[in-house]
Amino acid sequence: MSKLRVAVIGARGRIGSEAVRAVEAADDLELVAALGRGDELETLAEAGAEVVVELTTPDSVMGNLDYCVGQGMHAVVGTTGWTDDRLAQLNGWLAASPRTGVLIAPNFSIGAVLTMKFAQQAARYFESAEVIELHHPNKADAPSGTATRTAQLIAAARAEAGCAPQPDATVTALDGARGADVDGVPVHAIRLRGLLAHQEVLLGGEGETLTIRHDSLHHSSFMPGIVLGVRRVVSTPGLTFGLEHFLDLA
Amino acid sequence: MSKLRVAVIGARGRIGSEAVRAVEAADDLELVAALGRGDELETLAEAGAEVVVELTTPDSVMGNLDYCVGQGMHAVVGTTGWTDDRLAQLNGWLAASPRTGVLIAPNFSIGAVLTMKFAQQAARYFESAEVIELHHPNKADAPSGTATRTAQLIAAARAEAGCAPQPDATVTALDGARGADVDGVPVHAIRLRGLLAHQEVLLGGEGETLTIRHDSLHHSSFMPGIVLGVRRVVSTPGLTFGLEHFLDLA
Amino acid sequence: MSKLRVAVIGARGRIGSEAVRAVEAADDLELVAALGRGDELETLAEAGAEVVVELTTPDSVMGNLDYCVGQGMHAVVGTTGWTDDRLAQLNGWLAASPRTGVLIAPNFSIGAVLTMKFAQQAARYFESAEVIELHHPNKADAPSGTATRTAQLIAAARAEAGCAPQPDATVTALDGARGADVDGVPVHAIRLRGLLAHQEVLLGGEGETLTIRHDSLHHSSFMPGIVLGVRRVVSTPGLTFGLEHFLDLA
Amino acid sequence: MSKLRVAVIGARGRIGSEAVRAVEAADDLELVAALGRGDELETLAEAGAEVVVELTTPDSVMGNLDYCVGQGMHAVVGTTGWTDDRLAQLNGWLAASPRTGVLIAPNFSIGAVLTMKFAQQAARYFESAEVIELHHPNKADAPSGTATRTAQLIAAARAEAGCAPQPDATVTALDGARGADVDGVPVHAIRLRGLLAHQEVLLGGEGETLTIRHDSLHHSSFMPGIVLGVRRVVSTPGLTFGLEHFLDLA
Repeated sequence: MSKLRVAVIGARGRIGSEAVRAVEAADDLELVAALGRGDELETLAEAGAEVVVELTTPDSVMGNLDYCVGQGMHAVVGTTGWTDDRLAQLNGWLAASPRTGVLIAPNFSIGAVLTMKFAQQAARYFESAEVIELHHPNKADAPSGTATRTAQLIAAARAEAGCAPQPDATVTALDGARGADVDGVPVHAIRLRGLLAHQEVLLGGEGETLTIRHDSLHHSSFMPGIVLGVRRVVSTPGLTFGLEHFLDLA
Repeated sequence: MSKLRVAVIGARGRIGSEAVRAVEAADDLELVAALGRGDELETLAEAGAEVVVELTTPDSVMGNLDYCVGQGMHAVVGTTGWTDDRLAQLNGWLAASPRTGVLIAPNFSIGAVLTMKFAQQAARYFESAEVIELHHPNKADAPSGTATRTAQLIAAARAEAGCAPQPDATVTALDGARGADVDGVPVHAIRLRGLLAHQEVLLGGEGETLTIRHDSLHHSSFMPGIVLGVRRVVSTPGLTFGLEHFLDLA
Repeated sequence: MSKLRVAVIGARGRIGSEAVRAVEAADDLELVAALGRGDELETLAEAGAEVVVELTTPDSVMGNLDYCVGQGMHAVVGTTGWTDDRLAQLNGWLAASPRTGVLIAPNFSIGAVLTMKFAQQAARYFESAEVIELHHPNKADAPSGTATRTAQLIAAARAEAGCAPQPDATVTALDGARGADVDGVPVHAIRLRGLLAHQEVLLGGEGETLTIRHDSLHHSSFMPGIVLGVRRVVSTPGLTFGLEHFLDLA
Repeated sequence: MSKLRVAVIGARGRIGSEAVRAVEAADDLELVAALGRGDELETLAEAGAEVVVELTTPDSVMGNLDYCVGQGMHAVVGTTGWTDDRLAQLNGWLAASPRTGVLIAPNFSIGAVLTMKFAQQAARYFESAEVIELHHPNKADAPSGTATRTAQLIAAARAEAGCAPQPDATVTALDGARGADVDGVPVHAIRLRGLLAHQEVLLGGEGETLTIRHDSLHHSSFMPGIVLGVRRVVSTPGLTFGLEHFLDLA
C-alpha cells in the first residue's frame, strides 16, 4: 500500500516539531515536506503533498489554506482565530474544489474531545454537574477555554432535555467559593505548580456520581489526534469543524 | 395528563421498597400495587397496572412475566439469572402480545451503564486500558461482575478496531501485581472498609490519560434508572436487554 | 480485664444513637447509661459511669459538664459552640478535679483530622496549595467549616516556614473561577447530588503533586474517633481540644 | 550571607544535569564544580566544595564518598545499591571525620517521602489499607520499589499497633484480581501509556476513606528534595538514611 504524502507547515514550532515526529513515526504516512516561517508554499506542490498539517498563526493560516485548497490538497488545521467571515471565505474556496477536505480542530487531544462529548451525553441524566479544571500556575486565564466550552455544552444538553436547575441550598458563602457560573454550571479553576493541563467533569444523581477526568501530561498528547485527522480528512470533502466528528462513537 | 399506573412486585425487599418510594415520588407515575411474597398476581389486573416493576428472584420471575405479558402489562425487570432458554420463552410470550414491552436490566444505575458505554466508545482511541473496581470488604467475588463486563466490552471494542495488544514491559512481577487478565484487559479489585461500590476505567495514550469513574454511594442509585425504564418501556414493544438502549447518547 | 463504664448523653439523636451502638460493639467498653432529653443526670452516678460521651446542644452542654466533672467523670464532647468564656469556665471546674479529663472535638472523623494534620505538615514543602470540598447540595454554607479550617492551617504553616506567596499568573478570570481566598489559600466548594462529605487538599511542587483526600460516606465515620476518645481520655487529665492530640503520629 | 559551595558528581546524567540546574537556581547555593565520568575528584577540593551531590553508579559511589568524607565535605547521595557492608564502611569513614554529614536518600521526591510517612502514620487508625501504583508501560518491575516499601511500612505500623488482619470476604476470585500480597497489604500495579509515576494509598474505616496520592509528572520532582538535603546535611553530622529525617513534621 502506498503511503499518504503529508506536509507540515509551522514545522519548527513546539507543536509543529512534534507533528513532524508523529508523521514520521506512523507506518502509513510519509513526511514529504516540513515548512517553517519564510519557506515557499510552492514546495508543497513540488513535494506532491496530499495532506497539509497547518500549525501556524492567525496571520498566515488564510494564505496557506487558500493555496492548499486551490491545489486540491486536504488540510488539518490547528491554528486558531476562526471568525464567521473567515469560515465563509474558506467555504467559498472549498466550494470551488469539491473533493478537498479541511479539518479545523480547536483541540487535537482525543482525551479532551471525548471528555466534552461524554459530558454532553451524560449531562441530562444527572441532577448536578460541575467542572473543575487544573493547570500550571503560569496560565493567564481562568477558567480554561476547554472548561468553559465543556460547561456550555453541559448547559445546552440540560436545557434541551428540559432538566430542572441544579439543586444548591447555599445561603452563606465566601465570595468565589462556589466557582464561576457558566450558563448555570459552576466551573472551578485550580492553579498548582507541578500540573500541566487537567479537567474533571463531575455529575451527580441520587446515590451516585460519575466523574470524567482528562489528564494531559505532555503536549505530545495532540499527536494521535493530528494523525487521526490526517487519515480521515482525505475521505471527508468539505469543512469539518471539531475532531469529534472524526470519532466513531456508536 | 393522566399518570402512568405502576405496580411493584418484590416490593418488600431492599431494592423493591426503594422502588416503591421512587414511583411514589415521581410526578408522572402512580403506584397502584405493591406485591410481596405470597400476594396474588391478580391484584395487578384489578389495580389496572400498566407497567410492572419486577424485582424478585430467578425462581419467580418467569411466572410473573408470563402473567404480565399475557395481560398486556409492560415490565421493567431487575431480577437476574437469564439464560438463552428463558429469553426464548419470554420472546415467545412477547410475540403473542406484540404491543407489550419488557426491559431486562442487569444494572439500573445510569452511572454504571454510562461508564460501560463510554469505556467501550473510547477504548479504540487509546493504547492502554485497565479497570479498577473498589468495594466494601464483605463482597464475596473479585472482580465484580460489572468490572468483568466492562473489561470484556473494552477488549471487544479494541479487537473490532484492530488495536495492537496493550504495551507492557513487565519482566519481574510479584504474583497478582498486574491484576486479573480479562481478555487482555487488566482488572484490579480493591476491598476497603468504608466503601460501597466504585469503578474506575483508565485509558492511556501518548501524553494523556482519560479516567471514567463511577461511585455508587447508596443503593438508591438504582431508582432513576428504574423510573427511566418505566417511562420508556411503554413505547418500546418487544424485549430490550440493557438500560443503555433507553439512553439517548447522540 | 474489667470494661470501661461508658454513658451517652444525647443518646436519641442521629449521632448519639450511633455512639450507643459503637460503645456496645467495642469489646473493652460497657454501656451503662443512655440519656435523652429530660432524663436525670443523677442516672450517670447511679450507673457508675466512668466516661460520659456528651452529644447534645450548646444549651445543655455546660450543665452536663459541670455535673460530670464535679463527679470526677471523664467526658468526650462533640457539642459545638465553644467560646473563650465557656472554655475558661470548664477549665475552672477541671482545676478543682485534677484527675478528670475532658476531650472536646469539633470533628470526630479520624480521616478528617488526619487530612488536616497532614495538610499542615506538608504545606511548607510545596509551592502551591488549594482545597476542594465536595458536599451534597442541601448544605447551607460554602465552603465547609472543615475546609476553611484546613486552609487556615495550611496558610499558618506556610507563614511560619517563611514560604513565598503561591504562584498564580491569572490575569483574566471569570468571577469566582479561582475560588474563595482563605488567608491566601484558594478554597473551592462543589455541591453535587449523590455526595455526602468529601475534601481534597492539593499540594504542588516542581514536577509533582501530593493529594490528600477524605471521603465521608456515612455519619458512622465519627464512631471510631469517639471510641478512641473514650479510651484515651481516662488517662489524659485536664482539657484536650481536638482529637488530633490523641493520635500518635510519630 | 555567603553562599554554600556545592559540587555535583554525575553531572551529565539525566538527574545530574537537573541537579546542576537546581543548584544554580537556588539563591543560597553556588555551583562550584560539575563532574562527569573521567573527571578528577581533586577538582572538588580545588573548587572549595562544601557539599557534594553524588548521583553516579554503585561502581563509583564508594570511591567518591571515601574521598569526600576524607576531605570533610558533606555529601548528598542518590546512588543506590547500599548493603550492610557498604554502610559499615561508610560509617567507619564518618567516625574518622566526626563533623561531616552524609545523607543517602533512596527517593528525593518530597511528595513520595511524605506519602510513605503519612501512610505509616495513618495505617493503625483504619481497618483496611491497599496500595495502587501507576506507571508508564516501559517499566520492567511490578510493583514498584516505592509501592512495596510503602506496603511494608503500613504492615509494620499495623503490626506494632496490634491491628487485626484486614477484612476480606473474597471467596471467588480471578487469579491476580486482589493484587500482590506484601506483608498482608494488597498492592496493585497499573501500566498505562501517558503516565509517568504515580502512587495511591487507600485507607478505609467505618463510613470513611482516606486517600493519599502522589503524582510525579516530571523527573525534576527530585530537585526540591536534593536542595533541601544540601541545606540540611551541613548541620547534621554522621549518616542519615532517608530524606524523611530532614522533614519537620511536628
